[in-house]
Amino acid sequence: MSKKVVLAYSGGLDTSIIIPWLKETYGYEVIAMAADVGQGEELEPLQEKAIKTGASKIYIEDMKEEFITDFIYPTLKAGAVYERKYLLGTSFARPLIAKRLVEIARAEGAEAIAHGATGKGNDQVRFELTVKALAPDLKIIAPWREWNIRSREDAIDYAEARGISVPVTKKRPYSMDRNLWHLSHEGADLEDPWNEPLQDLYMIITPPEKAPDQATYVEIEFEKGIPVAVDGKAQKPLELMSYLNQVAAVNGVGIADMVENRLVGMKSRGVYETPGGTVLYAAHQELEYLCLDRQTMHFKEILSGKYAELVYDGVWYSPLREAMDAFVDKTQEVVTGVVRMKLYKGNCTPAGAKSPYSLYNEEFVTFGEDEVYNQKDAEGFINLFGLPLKVRALMKQGKK
Amino acid sequence: MSKKVVLAYSGGLDTSIIIPWLKETYGYEVIAMAADVGQGEELEPLQEKAIKTGASKIYIEDMKEEFITDFIYPTLKAGAVYERKYLLGTSFARPLIAKRLVEIARAEGAEAIAHGATGKGNDQVRFELTVKALAPDLKIIAPWREWNIRSREDAIDYAEARGISVPVTKKRPYSMDRNLWHLSHEGADLEDPWNEPLQDLYMIITPPEKAPDQATYVEIEFEKGIPVAVDGKAQKPLELMSYLNQVAAVNGVGIADMVENRLVGMKSRGVYETPGGTVLYAAHQELEYLCLDRQTMHFKEILSGKYAELVYDGVWYSPLREAMDAFVDKTQEVVTGVVRMKLYKGNCTPAGAKSPYSLYNEEFVTFGEDEVYNQKDAEGFINLFGLPLKVRALMKQGKK
Amino acid sequence: MSKKVVLAYSGGLDTSIIIPWLKETYGYEVIAMAADVGQGEELEPLQEKAIKTGASKIYIEDMKEEFITDFIYPTLKAGAVYERKYLLGTSFARPLIAKRLVEIARAEGAEAIAHGATGKGNDQVRFELTVKALAPDLKIIAPWREWNIRSREDAIDYAEARGISVPVTKKRPYSMDRNLWHLSHEGADLEDPWNEPLQDLYMIITPPEKAPDQATYVEIEFEKGIPVAVDGKAQKPLELMSYLNQVAAVNGVGIADMVENRLVGMKSRGVYETPGGTVLYAAHQELEYLCLDRQTMHFKEILSGKYAELVYDGVWYSPLREAMDAFVDKTQEVVTGVVRMKLYKGNCTPAGAKSPYSLYNEEFVTFGEDEVYNQKDAEGFINLFGLPLKVRALMKQGKK
Amino acid sequence: MSKKVVLAYSGGLDTSIIIPWLKETYGYEVIAMAADVGQGEELEPLQEKAIKTGASKIYIEDMKEEFITDFIYPTLKAGAVYERKYLLGTSFARPLIAKRLVEIARAEGAEAIAHGATGKGNDQVRFELTVKALAPDLKIIAPWREWNIRSREDAIDYAEARGISVPVTKKRPYSMDRNLWHLSHEGADLEDPWNEPLQDLYMIITPPEKAPDQATYVEIEFEKGIPVAVDGKAQKPLELMSYLNQVAAVNGVGIADMVENRLVGMKSRGVYETPGGTVLYAAHQELEYLCLDRQTMHFKEILSGKYAELVYDGVWYSPLREAMDAFVDKTQEVVTGVVRMKLYKGNCTPAGAKSPYSLYNEEFVTFGEDEVYNQKDAEGFINLFGLPLKVRALMKQGKK
Repeated sequence: MSKKVVLAYSGGLDTSIIIPWLKETYGYEVIAMAADVGQGEELEPLQEKAIKTGASKIYIEDMKEEFITDFIYPTLKAGAVYERKYLLGTSFARPLIAKRLVEIARAEGAEAIAHGATGKGNDQVRFELTVKALAPDLKIIAPWREWNIRSREDAIDYAEARGISVPVTKKRPYSMDRNLWHLSHEGADLEDPWNEPLQDLYMIITPPEKAPDQATYVEIEFEKGIPVAVDGKAQKPLELMSYLNQVAAVNGVGIADMVENRLVGMKSRGVYETPGGTVLYAAHQELEYLCLDRQTMHFKEILSGKYAELVYDGVWYSPLREAMDAFVDKTQEVVTGVVRMKLYKGNCTPAGAKSPYSLYNEEFVTFGEDEVYNQKDAEGFINLFGLPLKVRALMKQGKK
Repeated sequence: MSKKVVLAYSGGLDTSIIIPWLKETYGYEVIAMAADVGQGEELEPLQEKAIKTGASKIYIEDMKEEFITDFIYPTLKAGAVYERKYLLGTSFARPLIAKRLVEIARAEGAEAIAHGATGKGNDQVRFELTVKALAPDLKIIAPWREWNIRSREDAIDYAEARGISVPVTKKRPYSMDRNLWHLSHEGADLEDPWNEPLQDLYMIITPPEKAPDQATYVEIEFEKGIPVAVDGKAQKPLELMSYLNQVAAVNGVGIADMVENRLVGMKSRGVYETPGGTVLYAAHQELEYLCLDRQTMHFKEILSGKYAELVYDGVWYSPLREAMDAFVDKTQEVVTGVVRMKLYKGNCTPAGAKSPYSLYNEEFVTFGEDEVYNQKDAEGFINLFGLPLKVRALMKQGKK
Repeated sequence: MSKKVVLAYSGGLDTSIIIPWLKETYGYEVIAMAADVGQGEELEPLQEKAIKTGASKIYIEDMKEEFITDFIYPTLKAGAVYERKYLLGTSFARPLIAKRLVEIARAEGAEAIAHGATGKGNDQVRFELTVKALAPDLKIIAPWREWNIRSREDAIDYAEARGISVPVTKKRPYSMDRNLWHLSHEGADLEDPWNEPLQDLYMIITPPEKAPDQATYVEIEFEKGIPVAVDGKAQKPLELMSYLNQVAAVNGVGIADMVENRLVGMKSRGVYETPGGTVLYAAHQELEYLCLDRQTMHFKEILSGKYAELVYDGVWYSPLREAMDAFVDKTQEVVTGVVRMKLYKGNCTPAGAKSPYSLYNEEFVTFGEDEVYNQKDAEGFINLFGLPLKVRALMKQGKK
Repeated sequence: MSKKVVLAYSGGLDTSIIIPWLKETYGYEVIAMAADVGQGEELEPLQEKAIKTGASKIYIEDMKEEFITDFIYPTLKAGAVYERKYLLGTSFARPLIAKRLVEIARAEGAEAIAHGATGKGNDQVRFELTVKALAPDLKIIAPWREWNIRSREDAIDYAEARGISVPVTKKRPYSMDRNLWHLSHEGADLEDPWNEPLQDLYMIITPPEKAPDQATYVEIEFEKGIPVAVDGKAQKPLELMSYLNQVAAVNGVGIADMVENRLVGMKSRGVYETPGGTVLYAAHQELEYLCLDRQTMHFKEILSGKYAELVYDGVWYSPLREAMDAFVDKTQEVVTGVVRMKLYKGNCTPAGAKSPYSLYNEEFVTFGEDEVYNQKDAEGFINLFGLPLKVRALMKQGKK
C-alpha cells in the first residue's frame, strides 16, 4: 500500500498538476482537500475533477463559519491591521485550511501535506508553520520549490502531457485569492507602483464613481467585540458577513491599494477588496472609542501591531497569539453597543455610536459648572504633570 | 511701575474680558499677543481693539511659516496620529504660540503669562507645559480656573459692565479652533456621540455629497519626508499648504469625527476638518511603503503612537520628542520621491508612487525564474523560522 | 449621629494625630483600620491605643495571604520591575489596604476615607486611585495636603497638646515602609545620590560582607508561574515567603539602591531590601528562559515594563492591568518546573533549571549530525532574512 | 589567474582546514584575515601558519579600538541587553570582522567571503548579513554548511591528510569565543540546563568565592554616555577597558549564565564572562537614573529591547539601527557625570553618582515646606489622573 499525502486542492491548473506530480515524484496516493472559505465557487464539480486527475479521494469542506468565528473575529477584536492597511484576508485563511489538512492527514494516516503556494510568497510560510505547530512529524511538500515548472506555459504543457484538461477561459492577468472576507489582486500592471489600478480590476466592489448617489446607513450591534446584529436584526455570522459585504461593495467601500513588506524579505504590491470587513473594522473601532479607557486603548495599539505581524507571518498557532487573545478578550468585555456607519461612494464614516458601557460622559465635557469635575484640579494636575519639564528647565538655568 | 503679563489674545469675548480682569485682579499691565497661525482672520483690527480694551501694547505675530516647518513637518514625518484619527491640529499650535508668549515676556520683562483656555481641556496643559519647559520662573495665569465666570452670559455681563463691545454676530453653537492645518468643532449636538454631525457643520470642507463628480489628482513630491512640490511645481511651505487645503476641501477630503481621550481624564467628541493635512499624511505614508524596510516601518509605528501622545499632551519641548525627532529624521533620509493621490468625494486614495530610494524591486516579485531570489531558499527559511513552533509541538507530543 | 470616616492607621505619630484632627476639622467619627501586611509588628496593642487616641472603633486585619496571592503573585508572573530595579513592594501594598478601607467604609456606612500619606509621594496616588476605582462616591481626605503641620516637631506639639503619647524611642532618620515583601528606606543621607548607603542602614538583610562564607542553595518549584515548594517541600504562600526571606537575607541577597522617577514628577532616592522577592524574581525568570518561546518572551518584556508602570502609579484596579493579567496567565500555563538558585554574599545566581515544558532541546544544539536540524536550512534562512539588507544595498549601488 | 576568496581566519583547526578545502572545492586563491579584537592571543605567528596552510596572503588586523568605539559604545549607550542578561559580546564583534573582510575583498578584487561559523548558530547570520548589507554582490561561502565534516575527529583526519599540524594541546570541551569585551562558553556539561557551571569553567573571572575579602571601588566618568576616565584619570578606550576588565575580573564580577533564544529557532545555554562590560553597563545605568526624565527612560527601555534584538540577530548595518543610534545619541547629550561602583565578590553595586545634568533635586524631595513643590497640587493631579477610573466606576454603578 502506498503512502499518502493530503493536498490543498482548488481545482485550478496548479493544484491539478500537483496530483500527478506527487504520484510520479514520490509515489504517493494523493488525497485532495478543497476548502470552502467563501470564495464563491461551486465546489461540487471538484469531486469528479479531482478523481479524474488522479486523486484517490477528495474532501470538500465547508469551513465558512469556522473561518468567521475562529479567525476573523479574534483578529477583528484585536484590531489587527498589517502595515496600516491590509485586513489580513489571505493571511488568516491559510492556518484554517492547513489545520484541516492536518486533521485529514491524521484521519487518513497520511505522512505528508502538500500545497500549491509558490516559493516567493507568504502563503507557503503560513501553511507550513501551521503544520509544524500542529503536526511536527508530518512531512511538507511544496512542489513550486521543487519542480522545474517555472511558468504558466510550463504548467499547461505538463497538464496536457498527462491528459489533464486546462480551462480554456482566458485567464485574468492578475494573481488572485478570494474568500468571504476579501479578494486580493497582484501582478501584471500592478507590479509597477507608479500605476494606478485600472477601473476594471475590481471584481467585488463597485468603484466609488459608479456607486449610488445616495448614502446607505447600517447599524451594527456588537456584543463583547463581536458583531451580532445589523439594522436591529440578529444575524448569524455568515448572514451578517454576506449582508455587509453586499451593502459595502455596492457603495464602493473597502478597496486598499498598497506596497507591503512580505515576510520573505521583499516588497510586493497588492490591491485588496474587503468590503464588509472594512465596515466591521471601522465600526468596531468606533465602539472602542466609547468603551475603552485611554491606557488600555494606547497599549492595545502596540499589541495590535504585533498581532497583525503574527497573523501576516503565519504564526497563528503560537503561544504569543493565544496570550494576546486572552488580553484582547478581557478588553472586549465592555465592547458592547451599537454603531451606525454611513456608506457613500467609497467612504465609510461613523454616524453615531452608543453603549451601555460607554465611558463618554457628557456631564464632564459640558462647559460651565459641574459636580464631577472641578476645574481647579487642573492646576495641580498640570503642575505635577509638567514638573519634570520644569525641573529640567531649572537645571538648565543652573538654578538648582 | 506695574508688573507685566503677556496674554494670548484672540480678540474674542473671552480673551477680551481677560484684559480688564488681569488688571483688576492682579494689577498687571497687560501686553496682548495675537498669533497668526493661519486662522484666516484679519488681525490688524485687533491692534485698536486690544488697546481700547485696556492692553498697553499688542504684538501681532505672523507665525504661519514657523508653524509649518517647525511643528507640522516634524509631526508629519513621524506619522503621528492621535488615536488613529486626530491629526493634532490644535495640539501643536499651542506650544508654538506659548513659545512666542515666552519670548515676548522676556523681551518685555514680564513676570507672567496668561491664556484663555478652560480648565477642562487639553490646551491649558499645552500652553503651560511649554512655559514650564522654556521659562520655569514665569508665573502662569489661567483665568478660567480662577474667576467666577461660568457661562457665556456671565462673560457678556462682565464685558458690558466694563464697556467692552460684544460682537453682535450670532455665535455658532460649537466651540472651534482654526489654523492653517485644521478646524475643530466641539459641543452642542456633537456632545451626544449618537448624533451624526449635521451637514452644515463643516466650514472648510465641501461635504462629499456636494463635491465634484470628477476626481482631482495631485502629485506631491517629497524630499527627506518633507513636501516640496505639487504637480511638478516647487512650492514654499505656505503656498503648498494653501493649495492642498483648497483642492482637498473642494473634494470633500479631510473630515474626521471621533470620541477621543483627553489627557485630563475625560472623553470628548470632536469633529475635525484637516483637508490638506489628510492628503499629506496619506501621501507621505505611500512613500514610506516604498522606501522604508519592514523592521524600520514596524518599529516606527510604535514610536509614532508615542509621538502622537506627546504632541497631544502638550509635551512638545521635551527630551523624548527631541530624541524621537532624531530617530525620525534618520529614517526620512530616503523618503524622497513623488506620490500621486486621487481626491474624489471624500476619498483620498493612492494613484501611484515612485522614488529613487525605492526598496520595491519588481524583479524579486515576478513569477518565474530570477537571479536574485532562489525559491529553494524559502524551505530553509521556513524550517528555521518555524522551528520554535515545531520544538513546542514536539515537546507537547512528549517526543523530546 | 455624626458621619464616619475610615482611616488607614498604623499607630505611629502621624496617623495618631490624624484621629483628633479628623474629629476637630470635620466632626467625623473615626474608625481606624490597621492592616497586617507582614510589617512584623504586633498589632494587638493598637486596639487600645486607637481608642485612647479617639477612634470609635478599630479593625485589625490580617491581609498577608491575600497580599501574596492577589498582588505579589500576579506581579511576579508579569515579571514587572520598575525602572529595572524596584520590585514594587510598597506600590502593590497600597491598593490592597485601600480596598479593605473601602470594604469597611461600606460595612460601616462611612462617607469618607483618610490616609496618612504625604503630598509629595506616590502613596497618596495609590490609595486614592483605588478608592476612586472601587467607590467613586467616597470622599477622600489626605490630612498632609490640608493641615499646617509641616514637620515632625509640629506633629509632636499637636500630639502633646491633645495628650497623645509620643513614642520616646529615638526615631531612625529614614522614612521607611515595611511589609512581608520588602522594606524601603528614604531620606537623611540617602538624599544625596553621591552618598553610598551606610552599612547599618539595612534592617533585614545581612550586608554581603557579613554574610556566611558558604553558599546556600534553594530549589524552588513553580506551577504555572507560582512558587509552590521549596527544596522539595510544598509550602503555603506565607511559609514560603518567610523561608525565602530568611535564607536570602542571611546571604546578603536583595538590596537595591536607586534614584527613581516618582509619578508626581520628581526623582527620589530609595534603598530597598527585598530578600525573598529578589530570589523569586530571579528564579521565575530562569524558568521562563526554558519555557517561553522567543516571540512571547520579547513581547512580554514590553508588557512587563507597562505593567510595572501601572503598579507603581497605583493604577492597580484598572482594565489594562486586568487585560495584562489575562495575557500573563496564558503565558504562565507552561511555566512549571524547578529552579535551583545559589545564594552567596549578595549574589543570587542560577544553578540549574528544569521543566516538563522546556523548549530547550539538547538535540538541536549539539554539534554534529542530527535529525531535527538540517544545517543547510540556514542558508535559505539567511538569504531571506537578509534579503531586505541586500535589496537596500543593491538600491544604493544603483543596480536595481 | 584564479579567483580570490577572503577568509576569516583564526589559526584554529576549523579555519585551518577551510583553506585547503576552499582551494580544492572552488579553486580559489585564499586570502586569510585574522582580526585582533582583543582575544588575547599573539597573532604574529599566524603569518607563517596561514601561508604554510596554503593561504596566498594574510592580513593581520588590529581592530580593538574600532571595536570599542564603533560597536561597544553605541550598544552601551543604547543599554541593549539581550534577554535581560547577554551583553552581546560575540554578536557585535561579527559585523566588525565581516566589514573588514569586505574591505579586503574589495582591495584584493576577491569575489567571495568565507567564514568558519557553523550552520546552527547565530554567527553565520551575523557574518553574512553584514556582507549582504555592505557588498551584496559578493559570494558567501560557509563550509560548515557544505562539507561532510561533522565532528572534530573528521576535521583532524582532514587536516592530517593534508599535512596540516593539529595543535596537540588538550582541547577544552567547551566551545568558546573571546574578545576584549567578553568570553563565552557553550557545550559539554553546560548543555544540560540543570547543571550548574563547574567552578573551573571560568577563564577570566575569579569566582566570587575566591575573590578578595575587601571591596574595590571604581569611579567612572562618562561624557555623553561614553566612559572617558576611571578614578579621576582620563583613559583611552583600550586602556579603560583593560583596566575595568582586570579590576572586575579579580572581584568576581561579570558572570552571566543563561538559556537564550537563538535567532535560528532553538534555545541554547551559554555562560558569559564580561567583567568590565558588566561594570560599564551598571555604571551607565546609574547615570541615566540621574539624567534622563521618566518618559525618555521608559520609552528607551522599549527601544533597548529592540536594539538588542537587532545586534543579536546580526542586523547591525541596517536603517533601523542607525535611526535608533540617532535617538540614543540625542538622549546621551546629558549623560555626563561620575559614577562610583563597588565591586565585591561578584557584586557590582552603585556607591554614588553625580552629574551636572542631574534632574534629581533634593529640594523637591525633602519633607516639609518648600518653594518649588506645592503639596496641594497633588490633589488636583490625583483627581484628574484618576478620573478615568472614577468615570468607569460611576458607569458600573449605573450612576452616569
